[in-house]
Amino acid sequence: MNNYRFTISYDGSRYSGWEHQKHTDDTIQGKIEAVLAKMCDTDTVKLVGAGRTDAGVHAKAMTANALLDTTLPVREIRDYMNRYLPDDIVILEVSEASQRFHSRYNATGKTYCYTCYVGQTKPVFDRRYVTRLEGMPDIAAMNQAAAYLTGMHDFASFCGNPKMNKSTVRTVDSIRIQQKGDYLTLSFHGDGFLQHMVRIMTGTLLEVGFHRMQPNDVITILQGKKRSLAGPTAPAQGLCLIEVDYN
Amino acid sequence: MNNYRFTISYDGSRYSGWEHQKHTDDTIQGKIEAVLAKMCDTDTVKLVGAGRTDAGVHAKAMTANALLDTTLPVREIRDYMNRYLPDDIVILEVSEASQRFHSRYNATGKTYCYTCYVGQTKPVFDRRYVTRLEGMPDIAAMNQAAAYLTGMHDFASFCGNPKMNKSTVRTVDSIRIQQKGDYLTLSFHGDGFLQHMVRIMTGTLLEVGFHRMQPNDVITILQGKKRSLAGPTAPAQGLCLIEVDYN
Repeated sequence: MNNYRFTISYDGSRYSGWEHQKHTDDTIQGKIEAVLAKMCDTDTVKLVGAGRTDAGVHAKAMTANALLDTTLPVREIRDYMNRYLPDDIVILEVSEASQRFHSRYNATGKTYCYTCYVGQTKPVFDRRYVTRLEGMPDIAAMNQAAAYLTGMHDFASFCGNPKMNKSTVRTVDSIRIQQKGDYLTLSFHGDGFLQHMVRIMTGTLLEVGFHRMQPNDVITILQGKKRSLAGPTAPAQGLCLIEVDYN
Repeated sequence: MNNYRFTISYDGSRYSGWEHQKHTDDTIQGKIEAVLAKMCDTDTVKLVGAGRTDAGVHAKAMTANALLDTTLPVREIRDYMNRYLPDDIVILEVSEASQRFHSRYNATGKTYCYTCYVGQTKPVFDRRYVTRLEGMPDIAAMNQAAAYLTGMHDFASFCGNPKMNKSTVRTVDSIRIQQKGDYLTLSFHGDGFLQHMVRIMTGTLLEVGFHRMQPNDVITILQGKKRSLAGPTAPAQGLCLIEVDYN
């Protein structure tokens, strides 16, 4: 069996997230595994994703890999998958990888982008990919707070999983906040992110942006290591996994 | 009653077009009139649109007008409408117009854009707004054909309404064909367009682009004044009304 690497783009709006779940097959992983199993004429295929996006979260370029028993050239694998996958999931690229390539363990970094709409009316054509804010937040204050989040920290207060029993230390290299017309984007780059971490960071930065928290409250939140100290989890639909890095 | 002018953006995917129809209220005009009637606490409001987009066609900025009996300021009218309209219809602007302003009779020009996806896979995030082509057409040939379409002509061969009993003479000022990455756009500006005219021009230009017609076949098609001579009607979803001009 060869190890294949996939670059995948999806609109997560109607899915229960990336990862398989017991009581539904409405997951990105499930949809892709079903098509691969059909293609290889086998019962099950195990697809490993670089991360697990939440229900409603999108991806421009998720990376995943799977061991497949097939003689099809990579381009035909890609075309086969795109023919049978629904319209909101697309395989951008398929390549052969070394047997040791593991999309999650080998990932060295990830970029996520959170998009807010700050216009006076409503967004129409990208309404499924943005979160609408009721005004323009204070970007200078958000940048101050973002500076406190940047670096290596214990992000326990920014973890949505109360039963997390592994390390909650992560390094966030950069947080870039940009306004372009009616859109405000928050781009996060780091070595890895805990469950809901990007959405809780976004929710907290927006609390600061609307002056319901002070920028240096972030220091206390990090030190406290309690989820309840941080801001709300921003809605899933504004979040998109942009890229996964490998060395 | 004051005459109000509206600038409207909509995703036409799930509608039966702009114009009211007898057996369905799933039209953009119908949705907006219902909200205006509610706002003015009256039985019916007549909204006049600058044109009638087909089922599935989108608009970035349609113009319409209506006589309304209301004391609300224009900004509150806009906000009220956006609160009650579905997510895929948005009122960008409301302004007071002179009593004589008529969005259709006073329109002096329109811009439409037809967007094709020419990438190797599938578009995900804008899949509802593009038409996918099975390859890259010959743009030079399309430009040659477009030159024959430009100018004042009898566009009877490009009219989707077989019972059209008014003039089918229109002036197309410009047709711009541009490739940007995986997208090919065809922008049309003219004084007005017949039913399906932009889609039939697009379908015909694509026939030329894929060498199933010659550029100068367009001359014969125009002269023949028969719908059957032109190419197919390109799918609705790739078409968007960009702007309506007024002097």
